[in-house]
Amino acid sequence: MTDTLNLYKQYRRKILAYKYVNFISSWDLQTEAPDGSVENTSRQLEVITEESYRIQTDEKYVKCVEKLYAERDKLDEVTAHEVEKIKKELSQLKNIPKDEYIGYQQLLNKSYPVYVKAKQTGNFRLFLPVLKEIVLFNKKLCKWLETDTLKGYDVLLDNYEPQYTTKEYDAFFDLLRKKLVPFVKETVRKKLKYNDSFVGKQFDAGRQKQFCEYIRDVMCFDKTRGVMKESEHPFTSGFGTDDVRITVHYYPEMVESAIFSAIHETGHALYEQQQDKCLNETLCCGGASLGLHESQSRFYENIIGRSLAFWQTHFPRLQQTFPEQLEGITATDFYKHVNKAQCSFIRVDADELTYPLHIMLRYEMEREFIDGNLQVEDFPEYWNKLFYEYFGITPPDDSSGVLQDVHWAYGNIGYFPTYALGSAIASQLYAKMSSDIDVDKCIRSGSTFEINKWLKERVHRYGDSKYPKEILRIATGEDFNPDYYVEYLIKKYSDLYNAD
Amino acid sequence: MTDTLNLYKQYRRKILAYKYVNFISSWDLQTEAPDGSVENTSRQLEVITEESYRIQTDEKYVKCVEKLYAERDKLDEVTAHEVEKIKKELSQLKNIPKDEYIGYQQLLNKSYPVYVKAKQTGNFRLFLPVLKEIVLFNKKLCKWLETDTLKGYDVLLDNYEPQYTTKEYDAFFDLLRKKLVPFVKETVRKKLKYNDSFVGKQFDAGRQKQFCEYIRDVMCFDKTRGVMKESEHPFTSGFGTDDVRITVHYYPEMVESAIFSAIHETGHALYEQQQDKCLNETLCCGGASLGLHESQSRFYENIIGRSLAFWQTHFPRLQQTFPEQLEGITATDFYKHVNKAQCSFIRVDADELTYPLHIMLRYEMEREFIDGNLQVEDFPEYWNKLFYEYFGITPPDDSSGVLQDVHWAYGNIGYFPTYALGSAIASQLYAKMSSDIDVDKCIRSGSTFEINKWLKERVHRYGDSKYPKEILRIATGEDFNPDYYVEYLIKKYSDLYNAD
Repeated sequence: MTDTLNLYKQYRRKILAYKYVNFISSWDLQTEAPDGSVENTSRQLEVITEESYRIQTDEKYVKCVEKLYAERDKLDEVTAHEVEKIKKELSQLKNIPKDEYIGYQQLLNKSYPVYVKAKQTGNFRLFLPVLKEIVLFNKKLCKWLETDTLKGYDVLLDNYEPQYTTKEYDAFFDLLRKKLVPFVKETVRKKLKYNDSFVGKQFDAGRQKQFCEYIRDVMCFDKTRGVMKESEHPFTSGFGTDDVRITVHYYPEMVESAIFSAIHETGHALYEQQQDKCLNETLCCGGASLGLHESQSRFYENIIGRSLAFWQTHFPRLQQTFPEQLEGITATDFYKHVNKAQCSFIRVDADELTYPLHIMLRYEMEREFIDGNLQVEDFPEYWNKLFYEYFGITPPDDSSGVLQDVHWAYGNIGYFPTYALGSAIASQLYAKMSSDIDVDKCIRSGSTFEINKWLKERVHRYGDSKYPKEILRIATGEDFNPDYYVEYLIKKYSDLYNAD
Repeated sequence: MTDTLNLYKQYRRKILAYKYVNFISSWDLQTEAPDGSVENTSRQLEVITEESYRIQTDEKYVKCVEKLYAERDKLDEVTAHEVEKIKKELSQLKNIPKDEYIGYQQLLNKSYPVYVKAKQTGNFRLFLPVLKEIVLFNKKLCKWLETDTLKGYDVLLDNYEPQYTTKEYDAFFDLLRKKLVPFVKETVRKKLKYNDSFVGKQFDAGRQKQFCEYIRDVMCFDKTRGVMKESEHPFTSGFGTDDVRITVHYYPEMVESAIFSAIHETGHALYEQQQDKCLNETLCCGGASLGLHESQSRFYENIIGRSLAFWQTHFPRLQQTFPEQLEGITATDFYKHVNKAQCSFIRVDADELTYPLHIMLRYEMEREFIDGNLQVEDFPEYWNKLFYEYFGITPPDDSSGVLQDVHWAYGNIGYFPTYALGSAIASQLYAKMSSDIDVDKCIRSGSTFEINKWLKERVHRYGDSKYPKEILRIATGEDFNPDYYVEYLIKKYSDLYNAD
């Protein structure tokens, strides 16, 4: 056992080093590398991927994992969880025919430019042949990876969010369909009155950066263990607890965009920075799942960052930063502006209230084309039908409809639901947090220190060393319960719209 | 042969990928990584170094190189040169006892902080024990690596600059001692009259950056295949022809510092960018030697960048950038300011004329403590004696004397002479270039395009695929000849000081 464990740790040490290489090179490619370097760099990364793959599929390593898996009750809790995760990945890899797998990777490599062209021209037909192949592969994947308990779409869902399947998501989205859809329809008909004279003015990028740095400090992001930079699309990446990097993008004509990106990405970053340091030497460092990671970014972005208390506390600073642009605007005006609900076509621009309906639509479509009879040819029509049902409007073209997201072009089917799940988990955590501490008072203190501390203790410290369901139970004493989410949204938006 | 060559290429492909990893991680560590990340990152890089070492010392690879070396006359020219270089490295590695090598690496890891402390406190005694060990190892190294033709200090010299030994350097420095030392003494006694009212004023870093970007464009640095950034100490790094990165540092109280750094580093960068692209897939990409690389940076920095034509062309732009600070200053004032000769203690701050004497002193010391009887205990005294001989002044303390450079603390003995060699080669190239094209006219055209083209054709394109001596012969039709350097310096400084 000791020998096996030592050998395992030698492999793990190497796997971690290659993870670092992937992190640092993709960070560089996304933020700094000159365009002309990409081709040569890709060639080097191909070699690194091969080396890393060779180690992770090395027979000695596989045997080692199997031995440890068989005796996992004798391992410490973190290693046991780690071995279980790796065992699952290795079994899956074994069940996918190698030539199919390579063919699919090649397909994905070429699909992105085809997708971009189709989106730019609003021509779904262009993307159709590639998307058909992607869907076909994913249907086959469900077969290859099916188990006694997981079949069809559930296989994909469980891959993106372990232990969450159509059972959980159906209940979740049924609740949204029943309670949220009618509330949204009622709310968006109302008018929110406030002074919006700052909309369309120019906000200097350098000053936006200063304000985002202020917000980063409000949220206690540890600058000695992290970096904030610019990139085309905001994201968080990093390696372990001591190197967490976020990016934002400054739009001069839309001051709130960078601010909420900064809050969102800092939320992700806090989850990474606040993990137990001992996880750095394991493969259990990082968020427990996409949904749980998103629950942290959305908790800070929406529940904290879009609260009245937050803007009553920090709007004066924003106004100081942009005295001309924000002359005569109150904290309440700004609060209303960043919470205005409206039916719109684009998911990433959607407000907090309508957002989950965009996800529900994608979930239903995926369920239908993986487990049901929806054909890829019929995607645009199906999309528009559902869209009208939930939002009462029809996209003017496929670029604003079925072609708007890149996920399917990357082969990510089963990913979308984790976004809405993240928001719902955030609300559930918020309910529990509110029974422990005075969240409003924390926000008004000018620093999220107490909030961070609560999340560190209940969620962050565990990193990826437990399943997300288990972490949620530890944090809230309950299983996943979407009631909190619906209650939170209806309360927030009723207060907001009835105040007028 | 074909099989051997194919196997060799497989190894080379891997070695290149690890070279990329080293480049990208050290770039990140020097420009962006948060301080707190260094410890964990070092652990990962240790693994990467091990993996890379394992490949480069793999028995199959070593045999492969030996086979190809034996039949190198059948290989294409680039591969033949590459194999010869690798063969030499592998033989050297084999001749160094492994435990001594590891012990030395450990010594070097701890020597830097000791050196820094000694320099900060001006206490040579602190550094003495470590430096003694470093010198001792290098003396042993000379024994381990000696050949029929290379012995003692020559072994070290040849390692930094292939085929240059005490034979070449002695002749070079004898010439400097004979012709330059008296000229320097005579020149520094004279006074250079000009309006220096801008000295000590504040120059905004953002505007300095704008001007450096302008200079970078003047020099035709290809931005699609390169990056210019800030760091504590300016440097150039990169990977192949398509990813060349330079840094500068902006000092608000000294506008010329960043400008000449930018020109110097862009000189290095052009050498990298202008190589034949086919070298990207080989281990012959990069400069042919330290001296040749330095010849390019110094050619642009001193011969072009410190010329009157250059400032008559670009000073108006600098004045536009800093109208208040440079009010009433002329191009000639600025030209004089950046060429003023004086005896000073610190090598890196020295002017173009006195610079080589700083190097000569270090060369003599190294020769003496490697091949002669100079003991490490006697370094400070010996340094000060030589310094007085060449400059007529004595350093007030060891921080401004023997402790000023980091090179020996890093174990780099035999490195210094390449700096002066670089300047001398630059002058030799300049003489030949001047017989082919009107350099002054090129400078006044506002772009170094024609100059770049000449250097690309004669020097840059070959990268590291030939020995520096061969490249110099191709470029100038002559062997190394330091007369050009002495003539260049005496002409430039006579004109400058006699004009007054």
